[in-house]
Amino acid sequence: MLPRLTTTPAATTVFTMVLTQGPVSRVEIAKRTGLSSAAVTKAARPFIEEGYLQELEATERTAPGAGRPASPLAIKPEREFFIGVKITNDELIGVVTDLRAQPLASSHRPLATTDVESVVAELAELVAGLLATDPSYGARCHALGLAVSGDVDKAHGLVRYSPFLGWRQVPLARLAAAATGLTVTVENDVKALTVAEQWFGDGVGASSFALVTVGVGIGCGLVVNGRVVAGAHGVAGEIGHIPVGGEEPECHCGGRGCVEAIAGTAPLVAAVRAASAADADDAVAGQVVTTIETALAAAHAGDPAVREVFARAGHAIGLAMAAMANLFGPERIIVTGDVPGLVAYDLFEEQINRSFTAQAFGAAADCRLLLRPRTFEQWARGAAAVAIQTLFTL
Amino acid sequence: MLPRLTTTPAATTVFTMVLTQGPVSRVEIAKRTGLSSAAVTKAARPFIEEGYLQELEATERTAPGAGRPASPLAIKPEREFFIGVKITNDELIGVVTDLRAQPLASSHRPLATTDVESVVAELAELVAGLLATDPSYGARCHALGLAVSGDVDKAHGLVRYSPFLGWRQVPLARLAAAATGLTVTVENDVKALTVAEQWFGDGVGASSFALVTVGVGIGCGLVVNGRVVAGAHGVAGEIGHIPVGGEEPECHCGGRGCVEAIAGTAPLVAAVRAASAADADDAVAGQVVTTIETALAAAHAGDPAVREVFARAGHAIGLAMAAMANLFGPERIIVTGDVPGLVAYDLFEEQINRSFTAQAFGAAADCRLLLRPRTFEQWARGAAAVAIQTLFTL
Repeated sequence: MLPRLTTTPAATTVFTMVLTQGPVSRVEIAKRTGLSSAAVTKAARPFIEEGYLQELEATERTAPGAGRPASPLAIKPEREFFIGVKITNDELIGVVTDLRAQPLASSHRPLATTDVESVVAELAELVAGLLATDPSYGARCHALGLAVSGDVDKAHGLVRYSPFLGWRQVPLARLAAAATGLTVTVENDVKALTVAEQWFGDGVGASSFALVTVGVGIGCGLVVNGRVVAGAHGVAGEIGHIPVGGEEPECHCGGRGCVEAIAGTAPLVAAVRAASAADADDAVAGQVVTTIETALAAAHAGDPAVREVFARAGHAIGLAMAAMANLFGPERIIVTGDVPGLVAYDLFEEQINRSFTAQAFGAAADCRLLLRPRTFEQWARGAAAVAIQTLFTL
Repeated sequence: MLPRLTTTPAATTVFTMVLTQGPVSRVEIAKRTGLSSAAVTKAARPFIEEGYLQELEATERTAPGAGRPASPLAIKPEREFFIGVKITNDELIGVVTDLRAQPLASSHRPLATTDVESVVAELAELVAGLLATDPSYGARCHALGLAVSGDVDKAHGLVRYSPFLGWRQVPLARLAAAATGLTVTVENDVKALTVAEQWFGDGVGASSFALVTVGVGIGCGLVVNGRVVAGAHGVAGEIGHIPVGGEEPECHCGGRGCVEAIAGTAPLVAAVRAASAADADDAVAGQVVTTIETALAAAHAGDPAVREVFARAGHAIGLAMAAMANLFGPERIIVTGDVPGLVAYDLFEEQINRSFTAQAFGAAADCRLLLRPRTFEQWARGAAAVAIQTLFTL
């Protein structure tokens, strides 16, 4: 286990503030957190002693004659390095980051199978390769974060169920720790990306925001009052299973009218195939639409029936986002995806905006929508952010 | 203004814990909150000095030879009294409570009009009557909480918009303070009831729960990580505007398929009227259904078409509750209402449960549903709870 630098809420609060908003003076930290100056100083001390925080040169005096100048506290980003890996069903994507989750190196490794033992062996190779890119990484890297889609029990390092990997009850943290020699944290991939946005991305400074991911599934990470919503029973952010479609269609979850059953990759591709096959005059009609890439090509070729399918999917996503905003009133919603080309939203954006605005209740419509493509490296960075978090959260 | 007893998050934390979970020892408070013993002692001191908290007789020693016994801290419930009033469009309902929001006296006052000036004059009479019921109330009551449906700006004591009262931009806190001589807090009625459940009701001990209210509108209060969700733009908990009905029906909010447009009192009554009028053999067919009471009577008379209308409404409510649970994963959901007879849920309960279970995603279905009738006095108590909260929250 890594040494834990903190055992109090105040230490977590202080370090988080310097990490995400620093450099910042102790006086300012006290002001923003409501902690006393003495409590801030006490909370910061172990981080300074261990080299995670540093005092910058004093730049100003707090007041004329106040005596002691305000020395801002800042992170030492290269004090420690972290590895984050996103595990998909056909590839591992890994990054090395500094303490501020800035990626310094990245690597991809294809997976021939999702067999657990093989994936863990490939993971060990990927990690060894990343650590070998710079001598300081190996010397100062102790923590690995893994991001996996599905139902993940972070506290126990367990992948309870990952449909796309075909995994059930896999003790991934233990297996990966044995294979890499690092301390391992496993988190749901959408939650991991949400943590990265909260601390280092488009969520900084917002006490509440949502991240919506569009792809094979439709997922959502929620931050309320500064904390990621975990769900009392382990389920949260399942925006894909809001029933905006009335009684149709049936969803794999057993529900009806789910967003995911309309706008997830598989039903979307099927609907595009049906629409383009029905249109015999279209240039791509003869081409069989079997993947999201061919579905996107059909839409870009201008087939109106295909574009209508994308508009219906955007409508469902926009309605679900409005339902979510009506319930918890986020300051912003970041919309992203995991399919290259889809994340540009040239097919979705207009309809998402229109349907969101139509269904958002009163001032909930004031929520800002940010459409942001995110690469798999950025998802891997989310996994690194979760590993960073273990350093100093309770 | 009332004297504020607290200016630090620690003071709020400590007092809240004693208020909702006390009597509890300082050692136990430190353990549960992560505060140091010294911080707990410091936080509790002003509350003890002002007579809000007391040290009970020590009942046990923390450990053999530990010297100082653990004296649990407890609330002094009669240190101060509070008045809470729920304002409806035809009645004021008021209660006097102690510091633990236990109602000690209640009073109703009919409203001939919702004209602001008249309502404030009636409110002053109601408050005077309540304070006159016991000499100690007048001597030790300084704070009045008001619960109003609609869009309320609590920080500024402003009713921005209350459709049922026909009020826009009413500075109710200022007007009521002038008329009663008390410090006044105004809150949305659903949020006020949520606070009462969180601290003194079925939400105690849950770090996340939801309150769903079924009546003229369909509302929701959410507590996530121990705090009521307020919404970055002032909107939250609008479960009534989740579009579970597909493209039909249109809702007064401008959206489509909203729960409230199916299960709110007005559309419910209209649908029951249509169903019972179509059934010429039915005992109540000749009777015009114009109110929720007559709609309930038609259902209780056993008309299958009318019962089907209630089942459809229950289905919509259950789906919206599942959508909310899929997003937040609350530990519990309390379902209540503001229409006598409807809150018994004999018509709704089965369908709500069935539709919730069908649409809840995985373990989100483990959330407990508690169907709880709440009287208007209990809504008024919510207003008192909000007034109590102003004593010691930042």
